[in-house]
Amino acid sequence: MSSLAQTSDIGLGQQTKSLVFYSEFDDPTEWREALLAELPDLDFRVYPDVGDPDSVAYALAWRPPSGFFEPFRNIELVVNLGAGVDSLTGRDDLPDVPICRLSDPGMVALMRSYVLFSVIRYARDMDDFEAAQRRREWHYIHPTPLDKVRVGVLGLGALGSAAAQGLADTGFDVRGWDMSPKELPGVTVETDPAKWGAFLGDLDILVNMMPLTAGTRGMIDASVFDALSPGTKFVNASRGEVVDEDALLAALQSGQVGAATLDVFCTEPLPSEHPFWAMENVYITPHLASITVPESAARDVAESIRRISAGQSPLHQVNPKAGF
Amino acid sequence: MSSLAQTSDIGLGQQTKSLVFYSEFDDPTEWREALLAELPDLDFRVYPDVGDPDSVAYALAWRPPSGFFEPFRNIELVVNLGAGVDSLTGRDDLPDVPICRLSDPGMVALMRSYVLFSVIRYARDMDDFEAAQRRREWHYIHPTPLDKVRVGVLGLGALGSAAAQGLADTGFDVRGWDMSPKELPGVTVETDPAKWGAFLGDLDILVNMMPLTAGTRGMIDASVFDALSPGTKFVNASRGEVVDEDALLAALQSGQVGAATLDVFCTEPLPSEHPFWAMENVYITPHLASITVPESAARDVAESIRRISAGQSPLHQVNPKAGF
Repeated sequence: MSSLAQTSDIGLGQQTKSLVFYSEFDDPTEWREALLAELPDLDFRVYPDVGDPDSVAYALAWRPPSGFFEPFRNIELVVNLGAGVDSLTGRDDLPDVPICRLSDPGMVALMRSYVLFSVIRYARDMDDFEAAQRRREWHYIHPTPLDKVRVGVLGLGALGSAAAQGLADTGFDVRGWDMSPKELPGVTVETDPAKWGAFLGDLDILVNMMPLTAGTRGMIDASVFDALSPGTKFVNASRGEVVDEDALLAALQSGQVGAATLDVFCTEPLPSEHPFWAMENVYITPHLASITVPESAARDVAESIRRISAGQSPLHQVNPKAGF
Repeated sequence: MSSLAQTSDIGLGQQTKSLVFYSEFDDPTEWREALLAELPDLDFRVYPDVGDPDSVAYALAWRPPSGFFEPFRNIELVVNLGAGVDSLTGRDDLPDVPICRLSDPGMVALMRSYVLFSVIRYARDMDDFEAAQRRREWHYIHPTPLDKVRVGVLGLGALGSAAAQGLADTGFDVRGWDMSPKELPGVTVETDPAKWGAFLGDLDILVNMMPLTAGTRGMIDASVFDALSPGTKFVNASRGEVVDEDALLAALQSGQVGAATLDVFCTEPLPSEHPFWAMENVYITPHLASITVPESAARDVAESIRRISAGQSPLHQVNPKAGF
């Protein structure tokens, strides 16, 4: 079959090719709607209601069980339902077809907005004005020019880089930390482990954007908080388990960490008896700094299906065996 | 004297030329420091301690009294200590020399950050999470993609344009309103008075950035609030008197305006008995959305002095008689 014929299969409503959706977390209804808006004739199937396994040409899946792909002998494309491929690395049951990740500008925009909000709130003394309003007090504090506010961003992956860039574009003095060098306009990037203490000690606000891996679990511990200048503010928008929560609590109680904005926690939902809830210097949001936005992510998934149907390479292809 | 000789007068520490500073609001110490960092030999004089009036070559002034310039027969440059020239229009005692306004990237960055904070707070439901935290409640609200949040910016001057642009860069659906057409990437600009009601009725958040003039005093009145969709949020970062405060209070009490972030008020400081203070849907800051940052504004003032000394035109020249 020529690739042109395959393309028109999609356009005219082919009977034989379907997409199978698998996720314990994502809403299949939103995804069905978003993908059908792009590809009206797509046969969208939610696992386990797959119909004829031989019809399954595309999989959109988040952590499917081992052996998931085996029945789908005619599969042509696997899209990982997430930006990171850590969910696919290490499994040996992937079909030998192009494998892609999601690239979701909506998710990136949400994360950037969350980090901007949290950093501006501290940089512009908004937490002080919130307290002053409760006292009905006009409490003027002369603003600090933004380029005098030093913001450190730990972790410069897709989301961390976007957050750092948004902060730099807004006018902050932004310093990034990552294992490997990155080029980000307006952001000073440090990768030298010998400079870790100096990096931490020269900040007004520290933002955690590190992914959770075996190597990062608990990495932001008492030694990190001790290395900060007293009163440094902290924002956690990645994963609760990257932080030693007991050490954070102690640092917030002593004032070593001046305040914290926390979207993620070791236990979620955060139990109602947790001391964080009642602390004046803690700002809590219920794990929604960024989410996948099917409507924005579906565009590239549909384009990848169109490309595969036309015999071309899909977008955002990855190599899970290499881990990226 | 050749312009080269004049330039070296500045560089080598000329004895005869001074700058006179006049403002009832701005801190002369900060300005002296910021300007001397650029021009170490500048003779910086704070009115009325001007020394020999014949030595005054430059004036950096905010609303000086009538006749202020008369004694300074050798004046070469007047810099208005602000971005708007409304403070100079209508006066007939200005010397016939180049007149400039301040252009202050630090002030622009502060305003952009204030508007970003206020808009993101509503767009990301942060006011709901603040209330939920007081109840120790994990209250998840599915995020709205930013490109589905419609933000209207009234007034696209230097600060309004920067705010609108910052919002568009962050991912919002931004619509601007101004008397005259503007080109702002990613921002839909409306200028047709016949579309005013439709503009207002199609927003989630309305941001006021209109300057205070005879024509804008009280322009945001009950008819404006009535034209909004019920529950639209409001941000005022320009001047209190542009808003009919009683109409705003009524609209906030009825819920027609869902919430407001207010930096400016008809009476400042806002009296402690004002009902705004205790309203759950009002967020108050003490008039500091943006301020002049001497360190960032002084660079261009110094450059203008250098240029005048070299016989060149200064930066940011204005024509107060024409009103711009």
